[in-house]
Amino acid sequence: MQTPERGLVEILEDALVVVAEDGLIAEIVTADDPRHEGVEAEARAAGRLEVLGEGRYLLPGFVDLHIHAPQWPQLGKALHLPLEDWLQQYTFPLEARYADLAFANAAYRSLVDALLANGTTTAVYYATVHLEATKALADICQAKGQRALIGKVVMDDPALSPDFYRDLSTDQAIADTAAFIDYANGLAGNGTRLVYPTITPRFIPTCTDAGLKALGDLAAATGAHVQTHCSESDWEHGFVLERTGRTDTRALEAFGLMTRRTVLAHANFICDDDMDAIHACGAGVAHCPLSNHYFSNAVFPLRRALEKGVHVGLGTDISGGHDASIFSNIRHAVASSRALADGVDASLPADSRGRPGSAVDFTEAFWLATAGGGIVLDLPIGLLAPGYFFDAMVIDTHAADSDLVVWPELDGLDDVFQRIVYSSGRQNVRKVWVAGRAVVDKG
Amino acid sequence: MQTPERGLVEILEDALVVVAEDGLIAEIVTADDPRHEGVEAEARAAGRLEVLGEGRYLLPGFVDLHIHAPQWPQLGKALHLPLEDWLQQYTFPLEARYADLAFANAAYRSLVDALLANGTTTAVYYATVHLEATKALADICQAKGQRALIGKVVMDDPALSPDFYRDLSTDQAIADTAAFIDYANGLAGNGTRLVYPTITPRFIPTCTDAGLKALGDLAAATGAHVQTHCSESDWEHGFVLERTGRTDTRALEAFGLMTRRTVLAHANFICDDDMDAIHACGAGVAHCPLSNHYFSNAVFPLRRALEKGVHVGLGTDISGGHDASIFSNIRHAVASSRALADGVDASLPADSRGRPGSAVDFTEAFWLATAGGGIVLDLPIGLLAPGYFFDAMVIDTHAADSDLVVWPELDGLDDVFQRIVYSSGRQNVRKVWVAGRAVVDKG
Repeated sequence: MQTPERGLVEILEDALVVVAEDGLIAEIVTADDPRHEGVEAEARAAGRLEVLGEGRYLLPGFVDLHIHAPQWPQLGKALHLPLEDWLQQYTFPLEARYADLAFANAAYRSLVDALLANGTTTAVYYATVHLEATKALADICQAKGQRALIGKVVMDDPALSPDFYRDLSTDQAIADTAAFIDYANGLAGNGTRLVYPTITPRFIPTCTDAGLKALGDLAAATGAHVQTHCSESDWEHGFVLERTGRTDTRALEAFGLMTRRTVLAHANFICDDDMDAIHACGAGVAHCPLSNHYFSNAVFPLRRALEKGVHVGLGTDISGGHDASIFSNIRHAVASSRALADGVDASLPADSRGRPGSAVDFTEAFWLATAGGGIVLDLPIGLLAPGYFFDAMVIDTHAADSDLVVWPELDGLDDVFQRIVYSSGRQNVRKVWVAGRAVVDKG
Repeated sequence: MQTPERGLVEILEDALVVVAEDGLIAEIVTADDPRHEGVEAEARAAGRLEVLGEGRYLLPGFVDLHIHAPQWPQLGKALHLPLEDWLQQYTFPLEARYADLAFANAAYRSLVDALLANGTTTAVYYATVHLEATKALADICQAKGQRALIGKVVMDDPALSPDFYRDLSTDQAIADTAAFIDYANGLAGNGTRLVYPTITPRFIPTCTDAGLKALGDLAAATGAHVQTHCSESDWEHGFVLERTGRTDTRALEAFGLMTRRTVLAHANFICDDDMDAIHACGAGVAHCPLSNHYFSNAVFPLRRALEKGVHVGLGTDISGGHDASIFSNIRHAVASSRALADGVDASLPADSRGRPGSAVDFTEAFWLATAGGGIVLDLPIGLLAPGYFFDAMVIDTHAADSDLVVWPELDGLDDVFQRIVYSSGRQNVRKVWVAGRAVVDKG
């Protein structure tokens, strides 16, 4: 079950997904293919046939485009506070603890296990400013088998970064970023590459112009991915406008940070000109619908961005978002798009309450979480198709202690797919593969 | 862990909750009470001491104020459709099936099991127009031990009710409602009363004036609870204004349907005068934040209603809401209140985007789901306190396959409570009691 195009659901019954040694899908043999019986028999004879079983369905794994890995130990905590208190009292002190490698290893292991168990096969991580702890996260992803884009966070401007948690200098920040790129590029050895180093200025307010320019140069020199926050909230959007005279998007462009492999988190306040700029360079947006209710003051204009050809995927924004599940964030993407379409204030007339036409449905949101995320990252993931990595999960509609209801006499396979998207929890994710390797198996 | 007042968190360590034979809490013996040791020893000696164990916390059970019980078999289905299609193609045909008692029994058993497993100890149910199937739901709740308010649905106006699914006449609708009240009142025999019959005009559009008036008379004669939909959407609110010349609230008042025991579902479009009327009679609102994203065109003005003294609790609105968990709906209540406060359309200036001051936090939303719901229903539930029913649940923070994270070196008990509210799923609910009887025990 998958969405090969936005809004298009594809459900193949009794198809065989043939996975090659390199973790890529070699071919998909449909039930009506004359070779079906032979391919199945051959795989069974070789002991390589895996049968899903009744009530179980294969879906592409999820792509989570925006995660603050060090914030995992505070998931669901302190969200009642204003942003400034949340950052200064909780988030920055917590991130500063990652100078301690033992703490970092324990937290990162717990996080990667949890996200894999939720079906997140590709995770885009902000680490912390610490080089060694960032290497540890890369080691953990490679070892546990999660595809991961990882960045050492750059915060080289003392003006807006706390003294207890920032880069000691711009030069050191750039050198550490370059060192991490080398480290991550060498990590796979002769095996399957899972970790992609990612250039990560936290956001313009915590970085110097010199640092941003140097990171842009590094992006051009290495071709590495880039991630940063973009026009997230009224405060942040306004701050960048004031400091640079430009929007985040245009300022990042001037620093050389807008590339085909750039992921812009949030982007709630981007205007049409920003969208044109993002589209022109092929960058993408990590839409984080749940987090935006807490820290963004508005809903991302998702439909408008899609209409303008902007690449978009989904992100949890752990721990600005309190839910690690991409299933949950798919649901929030639908709900918040409907809130934008209809508006929220009942005291206004219906025709001036919202932005009609803004809603997306569950098929579009599922596409964002899978194929859409793969397009943002310029990687062959998010689809079950030849040439794509076999990053996939099995959903068990009969899982114990789950609210996923299927009523056979009422449901066609389209209904089952919709119910899976609306009602699956972590307990329904029974098995997960990344690049053909089983990384979760709950039996 | 509980919220005895809105916004106030109370966490007692090592307290003893003493439950009497009648299912009511006799007393709570705190750890510093000189009788603590003696009461504990006595209970242990009598084999009546239950110890929660490490990482487990006792919370009041949830009160779900708005559930369409017959819609359980379509949870998470057809939500991409407009209301009219959703009703005519899916919902009314499904509800019509409950003429078949075997189907009704299977569906209702599945529903009650699921809601109890989610910690919903009190459920306010719309059944269908069918008297026999409504009796079956009452039997199931009494047998499985869920506190339940249940109503035979009245749809006696052929103009807006489909021919295949409506009351055959107004007289029959009233007679069946009266018969169900008698049946439910006799159900407990000499045992603990769990089922409260509830007068249930679906909403004004599907009911005749004569029917509504007769139901109002029945409410006055019996003192039974009343439930109906109120000012849910632009269409419904406008329809009632046009037909009656009044708002839903004032029209219901004129029919005699606004009582201390009336539950108004949704109420998104109530104005200040409506709030005054609701407050004056002591009726309450079932706020259904998730469902409202799908069918209501606006966010319920929760803060405003609370400031006006209106009783408010939470509802899932299964299956207009796709999530059976009240934990999830607590989170949606927080998120949608923030959307109302901040607004959603980033193209508007911040100071004209939303309704500042509208946000509620997780402690207030938890109160709505427990004590607030109890107040709406005029029942001693939703709190762990002497004279209240022991309707409670144990949350296991160590449950397998859960994203509930507790980090002992970082978390005080206040943090644990917040994490429980933000991250619990059905799998964290380990044991549930209603009126002192263990109705769920997952070991």
